[in-house]
Amino acid sequence: MAESHTVAAAALRRFTASVFREAGMGEAHADTVAEVLVWANLRGNDGHGVQRIPRYIELIDEGSLNPRPQIAVRLETAAAVLIDADKGPGPVAMCRAADAAIAKARASGVGLALVRRTTHTAAIGYYTRRIAAADMAALAASASIPNMPYHGTRVAAVATSPLSLAVPSAGAPIVLDMATSVASLGRLAAFRRAGRQLPPGWALDEAGNPTTDAAAAELPLPLGGPKGAGLALMFELIASVLTGNPILAAAISEGGAAALHRQNGFLIAIDIARFGEAAQFRDGVARLVAVLKAQPRQVGFDEILMPGERGDRVHAERLAAGIPIPPATWNDLGRIAARFGVAMPAE
Amino acid sequence: MAESHTVAAAALRRFTASVFREAGMGEAHADTVAEVLVWANLRGNDGHGVQRIPRYIELIDEGSLNPRPQIAVRLETAAAVLIDADKGPGPVAMCRAADAAIAKARASGVGLALVRRTTHTAAIGYYTRRIAAADMAALAASASIPNMPYHGTRVAAVATSPLSLAVPSAGAPIVLDMATSVASLGRLAAFRRAGRQLPPGWALDEAGNPTTDAAAAELPLPLGGPKGAGLALMFELIASVLTGNPILAAAISEGGAAALHRQNGFLIAIDIARFGEAAQFRDGVARLVAVLKAQPRQVGFDEILMPGERGDRVHAERLAAGIPIPPATWNDLGRIAARFGVAMPAE
Repeated sequence: MAESHTVAAAALRRFTASVFREAGMGEAHADTVAEVLVWANLRGNDGHGVQRIPRYIELIDEGSLNPRPQIAVRLETAAAVLIDADKGPGPVAMCRAADAAIAKARASGVGLALVRRTTHTAAIGYYTRRIAAADMAALAASASIPNMPYHGTRVAAVATSPLSLAVPSAGAPIVLDMATSVASLGRLAAFRRAGRQLPPGWALDEAGNPTTDAAAAELPLPLGGPKGAGLALMFELIASVLTGNPILAAAISEGGAAALHRQNGFLIAIDIARFGEAAQFRDGVARLVAVLKAQPRQVGFDEILMPGERGDRVHAERLAAGIPIPPATWNDLGRIAARFGVAMPAE
Repeated sequence: MAESHTVAAAALRRFTASVFREAGMGEAHADTVAEVLVWANLRGNDGHGVQRIPRYIELIDEGSLNPRPQIAVRLETAAAVLIDADKGPGPVAMCRAADAAIAKARASGVGLALVRRTTHTAAIGYYTRRIAAADMAALAASASIPNMPYHGTRVAAVATSPLSLAVPSAGAPIVLDMATSVASLGRLAAFRRAGRQLPPGWALDEAGNPTTDAAAAELPLPLGGPKGAGLALMFELIASVLTGNPILAAAISEGGAAALHRQNGFLIAIDIARFGEAAQFRDGVARLVAVLKAQPRQVGFDEILMPGERGDRVHAERLAAGIPIPPATWNDLGRIAARFGVAMPAE
């Protein structure tokens, strides 16, 4: 019978960094990718955690992900940068962009970092949280190859592009991290594994018809129909078309090489201290959180949770007890470990 | 029997401006409010059109809306402004803020305008469209007194704060304008008037329980539960708490004067020409639109519509044929006209 494994975050990070070093990344880049993937696992967001390692390796093998990128600022204004990520790892490009947005906001009140030619963004809340940790408000979104219908199409025509907003607080930072689909691909997969029926309105099947059969679900539907589809479209227009690296039009109409993995993104930072007292802002956030949590609840709700709060709790638990790795992921990582001659993480 | 009335946009604008001049606004401010309200009517967004005039007058009467505001820039950085709207009309404050964001973006690549102490925003897409007309990408949101449950509360705890994104195009500009609720208050009212049952998940009744009875619906539910509620929360934190004018915490916990009408907002502009060729951007947008429209459609869809496209069509129709004013609104406007000694618009 397949065994479950539990690994300490530090050991999982070391393993992940070793794999990516062996796959050709420099040490600092490998460390950043390991940090961001394992962070997602710590928060219970396993779909963006180490289960992605085999896919990242595939992307390196096919040439979609450059393990030795020359990431460079292509254009710069008083408040903005356009960064070309040279197909480097998404976590490396997005951390660099977050830091650039922070620096620009420090100088000019608001900072924008546009990122072209990046790869899998991983958990986008990592980068907005990084900006919030610098006492700034943050907004970030990314664009990718099509995997979701546009409102009314029966084929994939936009991406389940995530949107994240974050602010610091006197308590835990508030970090909203949401897909533009009703349910993420990971959530559809979880229903499939559990043999559960999907609620109506979540997915289309391979033929482009609505389905509640999780096993037949192929395409996640956009959140609120035209709203989620519209957001995904706008993120492509700003992250991709504006940066001169459009993804969707060619991926949909040409396919083939034009549909290979690639992403673009953007981050905005607002320097809170330029508009008032940062401490007063953090207190104001905490006050509203306290008020919201004290409100009478709907039937079926035991408590009122803030954006990111559930993940914060899982983070605390997994930091103490370790990260559970399901058997299928463990086997995948075993194959990767063998290929690169890296020892599996200690349990 | 109650009669329907049809009025040319220009006549309706003249009427609206006259009312607001008589109610104490300066000529330029009255013209701007008339322009923005009638624009919403032209686009078929009647809930943000002239039916709001009686409410605006109430707001002036109760002191929530200042018809003679001293709107001023309170803080300024290289890329941002904080504007205090002095409780002036939302359309005036938001137009001024949009122009400030454009000027800052022209100077610094990206521009942020934070707006504190404004009033009813009206159709937020007006302001992002204004930014798009300056060949910039735009994002705007606003915050208001509570009228929507936070995810899990049985009482109003956040607002149905709208979000808008816009970009120019070689065709019509693409303008997404969405509430953070599943359905707007106006849409709930339309179901009520039509005697139609609401879909599940749209609303709570007065006691805070889910209802599909449109007549009993009191609170619109947030889009996608924690997603829409999270967006509304983040907009309050950025537009209100960051600008030193928090709305929700006191409105929820104190009520009374703290729950009187007030709003805050923010707009971001990105100067496309600083990052590439604006003409190439507009062509890229139009190319993606053409590709999306050509995709195979789901059953029940006659065509694929872009954000704002339906409103563009109504705009063209109503510009030619006039704006229909339902009997109830006509009667309300008649009372306002009598009070201020203004002639009703010619039909």
